Parts: sequence; C-alpha cells; structure tokens
Amino acid sequence: MRMYDLIEKKRDGRALLAEEISYMVEGYVQGSIPDYQMAAMLMAIYWRGMTDEELAALTDRMAHSGDTVDLSEIPGVKVDKHSTGGVGDKTTLIACPIAAACGVKIAKMSGRGLGHTGGTVDKLESIPGYRTSLDRREFLETVKKCGISVIGQSGNLAPADKKMYALRDVTATVESIPLIAASIMSKKLAAGSDCILLDVKTGSGAFMKTPKEAAQLAEKMIAIGRHAGKRVAALITDMDIPLGNCIGNALEVWEAVKTLRGKGPQDLTSLCLELAAQMIRLAGEDSLEICRKKAGEALKSGEALKTLQSMITAQGGDRRVTEMEQMPKAPFMREVKALESGYITHMDTHQCGMAACVLGAGREKKEDRIDPLAGIVLRKKTGDQVEKGDILAVLYTSREETLAAAENRFRAAVVIGGERKERKPLILARVDRETTWYQGEK
Amino acid sequence: MRMYDLIEKKRDGRALLAEEISYMVEGYVQGSIPDYQMAAMLMAIYWRGMTDEELAALTDRMAHSGDTVDLSEIPGVKVDKHSTGGVGDKTTLIACPIAAACGVKIAKMSGRGLGHTGGTVDKLESIPGYRTSLDRREFLETVKKCGISVIGQSGNLAPADKKMYALRDVTATVESIPLIAASIMSKKLAAGSDCILLDVKTGSGAFMKTPKEAAQLAEKMIAIGRHAGKRVAALITDMDIPLGNCIGNALEVWEAVKTLRGKGPQDLTSLCLELAAQMIRLAGEDSLEICRKKAGEALKSGEALKTLQSMITAQGGDRRVTEMEQMPKAPFMREVKALESGYITHMDTHQCGMAACVLGAGREKKEDRIDPLAGIVLRKKTGDQVEKGDILAVLYTSREETLAAAENRFRAAVVIGGERKERKPLILARVDRETTWYQGEK
Repeated sequence: MRMYDLIEKKRDGRALLAEEISYMVEGYVQGSIPDYQMAAMLMAIYWRGMTDEELAALTDRMAHSGDTVDLSEIPGVKVDKHSTGGVGDKTTLIACPIAAACGVKIAKMSGRGLGHTGGTVDKLESIPGYRTSLDRREFLETVKKCGISVIGQSGNLAPADKKMYALRDVTATVESIPLIAASIMSKKLAAGSDCILLDVKTGSGAFMKTPKEAAQLAEKMIAIGRHAGKRVAALITDMDIPLGNCIGNALEVWEAVKTLRGKGPQDLTSLCLELAAQMIRLAGEDSLEICRKKAGEALKSGEALKTLQSMITAQGGDRRVTEMEQMPKAPFMREVKALESGYITHMDTHQCGMAACVLGAGREKKEDRIDPLAGIVLRKKTGDQVEKGDILAVLYTSREETLAAAENRFRAAVVIGGERKERKPLILARVDRETTWYQGEK
Repeated sequence: MRMYDLIEKKRDGRALLAEEISYMVEGYVQGSIPDYQMAAMLMAIYWRGMTDEELAALTDRMAHSGDTVDLSEIPGVKVDKHSTGGVGDKTTLIACPIAAACGVKIAKMSGRGLGHTGGTVDKLESIPGYRTSLDRREFLETVKKCGISVIGQSGNLAPADKKMYALRDVTATVESIPLIAASIMSKKLAAGSDCILLDVKTGSGAFMKTPKEAAQLAEKMIAIGRHAGKRVAALITDMDIPLGNCIGNALEVWEAVKTLRGKGPQDLTSLCLELAAQMIRLAGEDSLEICRKKAGEALKSGEALKTLQSMITAQGGDRRVTEMEQMPKAPFMREVKALESGYITHMDTHQCGMAACVLGAGREKKEDRIDPLAGIVLRKKTGDQVEKGDILAVLYTSREETLAAAENRFRAAVVIGGERKERKPLILARVDRETTWYQGEK
C-alpha cells in the first residue's frame, strides 16, 4: 500500500477502505508517512468529504492510536458529555452533577480552553487544591464513590488526533465537518463511556456559525458513535450570546454553584436541566419527561450540589468554593457603561470571549498562563433594554494594564440599536437518528 | 502575510494576488514555508484551479527563482519549442534544424526522459562525443555560428519548479492542468526565447489522455506566455500511436537523420514540417503557407541536415552519425511476430514506451543508466494489416535478459482485431488565441 495512491483516490472522490485508513493513521503516527503527504490528504478530505463508513474507520483508528480507558469495573451506565465549545459554557459543572445525582456514572476527561473558548479543566483548576490529574485507580475510585469524576485528558489519549490536529491547524484544514467529527469522537471513544451526549453550539461564539452546519456535525458524530456501538444523541444549542452571566474560570465555578443552589440565570439553568435529562435518558429506558422530572428534583433537593461537593473534596479541592455567597473578586475591575440608550441587538460572542481572554481568563497561545480570577460579569445581554450610563458589564483582572484593551474589545462586540430584538431559543434542535428542530421551545 | 491565510483563500476558491504568490514561491524556495503547507496549497490548487492572472504570476515567480538565460546578444528572433512528451518523439532533432535552416535562431534547453517518455538530451547523448553541457559563452557562440544549439537544462533553472515538482510527485498533485502549465512555462520563460511553439500530445502515450484536456493545457500555457510578452502557439498532436518507427535513443537519432534526408516515415516527416513552419511563422510575419513552403525547401535542399551536422560538430559530436546508411544495432535483438492475422486496432503507446524502457532505452528511476542502443523498431502500426507470423517489431538491447519481459510488455500493448481501424489525424488542432480543430487534416 502506498500513501500516494490513497491521496489520489481521495482526490478523485473515491472512498477509502478501512484497511487503507488503518495504514494511513498508523503510518502517520509512527512517522513513516510524512506531514506533507498527510497535509495533501487532509485538504483532499476537506474537499471531498468522507462517507459514514470511512469516518467510522478513521475515528476508530484514531481512538485506538494510544491509551484507551477501560471503565468496565465501574458498575452502571457511564455517560460522557461533550460541548463543541463556547463562551460562558460551564454546563459540565452543573449538568453532570445533576445527572450523577440521578444515578448516571460520569467518568469524564475534559479539555483546556484556547482562543475565545473556555475549557472545563481550566475552570476546575481555579478551585484551590483541585487535582485534574488523577491516576487510573484514583479516577475510577472517585467515580465509584461520588458517581462522577472530571479530570484532564491523559497525555496519550488519541495521539493520532493530536498529531493530525496540529497539522490541520497550520494547513487550513480545521474547518472540515468530517475531520472535526473524527477529532472529537476519537477522544470520546478512547475515553470509554457507553453513552455520549453532544452539545453542538452554533452562533457568533461557536465554531459552527449556522444551525445547519451544527446539525451536519451532530449527525456525523452520531453516525460515528453508533458505528462504534455507543448510544449517542445531540442538542443543537445557541451560542450567539454568552451562556449565563459569568465568563472566566473562578467566576464560572461560582455561577455553577449558584445555579446548583437554584439561583442561577434562567438560560443556564434550563440548558443544564435539559442536558442532564438527555444524559439520564441515554443511560436508561425512561421517557424524556420522566428524565426531566428527575433532573429537576436533583437540582431542587440539593443532591446535585452535594454530588459536586463530594467530587471536589475527593479530588483535593477546597470545598469552601461551594459555600461562598460572594463572588470571587480580582484585584482590578472596570465597569463598562452604555454610551447610548436603546436595546442590545447583538453581542459578538467570539469577541466577548476574546475580551475575557485579554483580561487573562484564557490563552491566546498554548503556553499562556491563566489568571483564574480574570473575567467578565455581564449585566445586560441581547434583547435587554439599556439606558445611557447603565452598567453593561464588569471586567475583572489581576493585570490592570489589560483593562483598556479588554474594554475596547468588549464594547466593539456589543451593538445597541433602536429596536428590541427577541433572543433566539436556547435549544434549537435535538439530533437523534435525525434532526428535530424545536420551534421556540426553551 | 501568512501562508496559512493563503491556503485558506485558495481552499475557499478565491484568487491569490501577485504579491501573495511571490511570498509563497520565495518562501518555499528559501525554506521558510514548509513542505506540508505547500502540499496543502497544491491540493487546494488542484481542486480550485487558478485564474490566468494567478497563473501568470506563479509562472513568472517560478521562472525568476533561479538563473535566467539572456539571449539578447544573439541577433534575430529566438524560437523555443516544447513537446509535452511521448514515445518516439524525435521532432526536436528534425523540426528545429529545419526552422534554423530558414533563419530562425534556436537556443534550446531540453530535458531527460523519465518513465515511458524519451528526452531529447538522452537522444543527443547517444551521439559519441556530443556535449549537452556547454557554458553560457559556448552555448551562445554555437547558436550564432550554427543557428541552433540544443543542450541540457542548467542546474539552477527555475529551482522553484524543481522543488514544487518533487513535492507534487509524492502528493498526487501532478495531474493539475494549471500546475503542469506553470511548470513547463516557468522553464521556457527562464530559457529566454522570444517565441515558443508548444506541441501538446494527446492519447495513450501522452500525459493528456484526451484532446480536450490537451487543448485546456495549451490554452493555459499560451495565456501564460502572452502575459510574459512572448509569441506563443500550440499544436495538439496525436500520441495514440508512437511517432515514426523508431523508439530508443541512437535509433531515434538515426531516424531523425533519415528524415532530414527525405527518407523518413510519413507521419514523422509531416509533423516535423508543420512544427518547423509554425516556428518560422512565430518568428516573422510570413503567412503559414509561405512558412510551410520554406520548411519544405529547407528539408528538400539538404540545408536542414547540414544545420544539424554543423551543430553536432560544434558540440563535439561524431559527425559520422549523420552519414550512416545502416541503422545502429545493439548486441541482442528479438523479432516479435504476430500470433494471429487481422488489423492492428490499437497500440497502448504508454506500454510501448515502457517496453523500450525495460530494454534499457529509458529510466524508471532518475538514477537509472540508459543503454543508448536499446529500443524498438516498429514494422507495423495501428491501422496496418498483419498476417500471422509477420514481424510486428524488432526489439534491441545490450542486456539480453530484458528481452522476454519487454516482449511481453510490447505484446500486451498491441491489439489485433478483425476490422480495419482508421488512424486518427496526426495534427488535431492549432491553438492560437483559441483552439481551431482540424477535421481530418494531416
């Protein structure tokens, strides 16, 4: 077999066989296939796409290119959740404890943030003492004991994905729906859960700019998961405005705890309840209605908060972060006030995320260090009425010199107009075997 | 400027600016742009194509990436000729001396053969003593004295093309019409002639399998040449059967001389006269009819043969090769006889070329050494009637052990059927500003 022939085949729009895909992935990881041949292949895939069979084989080989996690000793059904990323997305810290409180087992590996998006591991690391790196034994024991453990990704999880992603990142082949699907799902398959709930974000703060693209990605990921024998479903959710009111690591942990206490913002609360209900449904045979009821009760009773507390304690974290009434405050802050009256008609959510990143809440480059206290608290969001002088948001940072640039960036993201604009529904569709679009359902 | 953005632009089907193309070609030659980024770009170009403006800029930068030849001290109009390659194509050795005998100046750099196609430099090197490597001074003096000089390509002619071609060769991006056009024309522009006649081959022995593809390539090359201020035209000619009767280096030189003596095969003679006439026409203002007449006279009078003889002598070659009545013969030979009666309905010309290659007439890899005496003399060609036992061809080699494999390969290339098939016209079209298809004109 020669990589040349495989590139030619894909270039001409023909499907690769499973054994050809194995040869390619193994050769690339081992180094016998050079970057330049893989780069040509990736552009050909970008162009020609992949069939569901090709994609299943590609993802399987990527998933098995390194360590895989064996969760079989944990009794019960293990459910994973993945968000394609956005701004203010702290749903893992809320939906997963709710689901775990309802008996679903969650052994989850999360990622770090890059660019405008936050990452769950960064959020958890803002909790003093919390260890995101557990060995296998400790990880499994935590899940057995607490019903949930969230840690960072093991270094050798899907190394083929790591190598291919790094190449895509420099060859303009990131934005390919099949390649995105394979990348996400290879890590999910390697992580060993039985069921996977996907939260595919769409809008100005998401990688998928339109609901249609988001649904295409969701359908591809579901097809991959099913091929691998997993139960998979997806929600298409709005990321055209930041989720909740807090952006930034310690701020988001605080908002998550507040939400688990029943005092969270309405958008965040309702999305987390729905995500948890879908996770519970994937794990069992209950109707969605019953699952929603269970999730609501776990939130209301405080069981979900207790579940989060027990995980934090088990992983060495300071439990007091779950007891604070007051928001954690960085040394420097700036209020951003409206310069005119009207309605907020649009928030460029990517730019809101970048403003938080400038304050120190995120990384522009992998090497950057995060300021856990940095971030933005939104006081107004799309659809809200504002009077000149109203506080739109408060910026927080440990690095005073970042405030001016962050304010400029944030202001540029917010559009104030004369007419009130309705917010889009938060949950746009559920994707199972096919996509069911909701009309105005929250 | 970042190569990433340029890949993305081309990937999305947008045209690159001239300065972006400069950045790309220069960066790639200097090594600041890595192979993997160029590989992704080449696949994106394969997919999206290039506008005439992009192609002109790309070719210009490739042409100026290394040495360029200044022919200005040679008085008169300098005309170059390029064939896209085929089997038995010795037209340079015939058409160029004819044109030179009519006053056209020819300072030509030719290539070597690879795979099934022969190369003019290999053919000339079968002449004992002939030097294909002259320094600049000697090259110009030879053209001034003889009206013609044919040498090998200088090592540093269009190094961008050399590097890009090597990458295309391993990334399945060779068969892209714009990239082929840029590759050919970059070398032609660097070689410094005022006019360029292109002989674009089509058929089973050519890179362009259909006349339509050949015309597309011709039109692209002509557009490039015109952008660079050159006079350019092209003929689309048939390579669905080998040209003339001899394949192999010394054999082809012998057949070229025979043709210049007026005793060559009809197909080869007529094509060379037409190529020469088109070259003469490009160089001056005469009508094609007058140019054809001039070419015919130069052949008939023996002036063209004298021109070839003077060039060979000037470049150290043994003049006796132009005086031999007898064909040069390799130590071993084998007659290939028809196993059935009928008509030759098809000759897979690529396979005929590969059979000659097996005998030692060509290279499978760049490092292979050529056997100058090896080759094939065809006794029958497509359209001819054959009786069982007739000699179809004679194989020659200095390596007896190659005969069996070459015979098998040759036999597999020749199809004998019950019905006579007309040969296609040899000259299919002339491409000037647009393509004019000939109907049955030879």
